[in-house]
Amino acid sequence: MRAIVRVMLKDGVLDPQGEAVRHALGAMGFDGINGVRQGKLIELDLAEGATEAQVREMCERLLANTVIESYSVEVA
Amino acid sequence: MRAIVRVMLKDGVLDPQGEAVRHALGAMGFDGINGVRQGKLIELDLAEGATEAQVREMCERLLANTVIESYSVEVA
Repeated sequence: MRAIVRVMLKDGVLDPQGEAVRHALGAMGFDGINGVRQGKLIELDLAEGATEAQVREMCERLLANTVIESYSVEVA
Repeated sequence: MRAIVRVMLKDGVLDPQGEAVRHALGAMGFDGINGVRQGKLIELDLAEGATEAQVREMCERLLANTVIESYSVEVA
């Protein structure tokens, strides 16, 4: 079983990494970039029988800092 | 216009970050984790009229290291 977890900083939380990317793209001549947010994409290869609830528990306990980050889980 | 870029290490490239996550999850009691790969998720907020080709150029030139990383672009 394969699960994909997306972790992004919540709206309103400063994202210095994304800001650095935005600045670098501008310096390279790319115009019209209003904003960049950078997050994490985590692919989990799980044994058969694993559930989305288990993946959500992994997010709550380790993969995301839920104070400042939101996450979504997609089970494939 | 909004574009989402996913950047992952190519298969066969060692992923120490993913490996650390796998080990940590195991130590926390989560069983049956065969593998973890961690990549980047970049959300770009672009001016109207930007094209997917432009986003791909950003990937080639800055967002991904195409020697060891693969990327995909989704335009929303």
